[in-house]
Amino acid sequence: MHLQALVNEAPDQRPETIAVAQAADDDVLRAVIQATQHNMAQFCLVGSVEEIKQRIAHLGGQTEHYTYVEARSEREACERAVQQVADGQAKALMKGLVSTSTLLKAVLNKEKGLRTQQLISHVAAFEVPGYDRLILVTDAAMNINPDLKEKAKIIENAVSVAHALGLNQPKVAPVCPVEVVNPAMQSTVDAATLSMMNQRGQIQGCTVDGPLALDNAVSQDAARHKGIQSEVAGKADILLVPTIEVGNTLYKSLVYFARAKVGALVVGAKAPIILTSRADSDEAKLYSIALAAHYAAFHS
Amino acid sequence: MHLQALVNEAPDQRPETIAVAQAADDDVLRAVIQATQHNMAQFCLVGSVEEIKQRIAHLGGQTEHYTYVEARSEREACERAVQQVADGQAKALMKGLVSTSTLLKAVLNKEKGLRTQQLISHVAAFEVPGYDRLILVTDAAMNINPDLKEKAKIIENAVSVAHALGLNQPKVAPVCPVEVVNPAMQSTVDAATLSMMNQRGQIQGCTVDGPLALDNAVSQDAARHKGIQSEVAGKADILLVPTIEVGNTLYKSLVYFARAKVGALVVGAKAPIILTSRADSDEAKLYSIALAAHYAAFHS
Repeated sequence: MHLQALVNEAPDQRPETIAVAQAADDDVLRAVIQATQHNMAQFCLVGSVEEIKQRIAHLGGQTEHYTYVEARSEREACERAVQQVADGQAKALMKGLVSTSTLLKAVLNKEKGLRTQQLISHVAAFEVPGYDRLILVTDAAMNINPDLKEKAKIIENAVSVAHALGLNQPKVAPVCPVEVVNPAMQSTVDAATLSMMNQRGQIQGCTVDGPLALDNAVSQDAARHKGIQSEVAGKADILLVPTIEVGNTLYKSLVYFARAKVGALVVGAKAPIILTSRADSDEAKLYSIALAAHYAAFHS
Repeated sequence: MHLQALVNEAPDQRPETIAVAQAADDDVLRAVIQATQHNMAQFCLVGSVEEIKQRIAHLGGQTEHYTYVEARSEREACERAVQQVADGQAKALMKGLVSTSTLLKAVLNKEKGLRTQQLISHVAAFEVPGYDRLILVTDAAMNINPDLKEKAKIIENAVSVAHALGLNQPKVAPVCPVEVVNPAMQSTVDAATLSMMNQRGQIQGCTVDGPLALDNAVSQDAARHKGIQSEVAGKADILLVPTIEVGNTLYKSLVYFARAKVGALVVGAKAPIILTSRADSDEAKLYSIALAAHYAAFHS
């Protein structure tokens, strides 16, 4: 599957609405306009409405395609956008010209926020040249050093994304430096434990098998070479990394060295969150919106 | 610089000798014969001499090109090969058909081994498609979770490899998930400390500057985007990873996703050690021998 397919094959039903926290930014609006052209989503644009409309017109968009909510400060923009989701008006949240921390503060607000019982985690979907399937990497951005319980929740969040992409029983590889348990490496112990939790039904909707090293997680040749018997080896859909250090480096290695395409979501709150940054390409922003649209359509 | 250039441009002087611990293996001997054809090194082949000679003849090699030392067991092959290096007959050690742990045991033997004051660490040199320089990654294989002092030694070892490759003042990026110090991430604290140790002359022969994230370590665009002022950002020659988990995943991401070419050495003992595994390609074995030959010629 290609990320572009997610853009081209918008969900069947009427597109869901995404609330954008402070949309008065050309980079953000370009992605919004493109997504609208592909009929992927509707948008509720929160921020300085007058300025947003001017920018849309300037970028060649149609101001009447969108709904608007006025907000005067960064904090207000975040709170109002979150409010749209909390009220059910919007099914996804998108970061505009606001800081991640301000947006997450509004998301995590105990009374008016979007908290659930789930952990909030980051899931990135990569299209790697030479690989015929999307490879999800989690968590490269939110959880620094998750413990076993948190890793189980991070898997569940990634599985919910895989399901939305049509992968009914995704194969999950907890990625470690080696494919055997080494008590000196907690990641290998956690990997073995997570696999058994999956076998006992404590983690559902997927097949977890690890420890695996990255090579035998994604390459059937490498798995065969090591004589690994596993449903997941060589065919992993989801790579669970042990720490943010591993995830962030893998993410950037894929983008900068392997020239992979990527879209990403934060999941685990009441609705998916698009946390793209200025450094992301227009393409990456569009792919992230596509992921959010499919996620919202599948899980609503 | 390309790895093939290291093969083609063998050191000027008479090639140094590499001792191979248990050479009775076709994969190993293929690499040995190829390296001999390129005049990169001489080889002292340790193991079942009769069998080694038969295999060389079978592979089309010239048995008279090599010296031989008989050894009957795995342990004896390791000890005799190490002995060759300890005695100064050989300037590098290569793993043949023996386990890594048996070889390292012989290397680390306090009386007859090759220990020095230095830490032993792994350095991999990658040729990444689209990048015009070799990128060294350390430590992806030996040190699980190095502390600050160990990281300093790991840098020194990698710098000794860079010097042998003609990089007089390599740029070292301690790679972290972010390019700012975050006390919740020890890697960022260590990165800042290592940079200052470099400025104070405690780590020499290189320029260390971090924390950097992988993108702003290797991409000048990414560094510019973040407004990072640094001699290293975007131009790193050496990527110091915080843990074996990061290093191993980065290594395999480069090989399997970015289709990079690689050669690797273990340094810090009295001589460089080639620790290739069965899963390595013939090319990777040859590149590792080339690295060892250049290293031995430069540092002898």
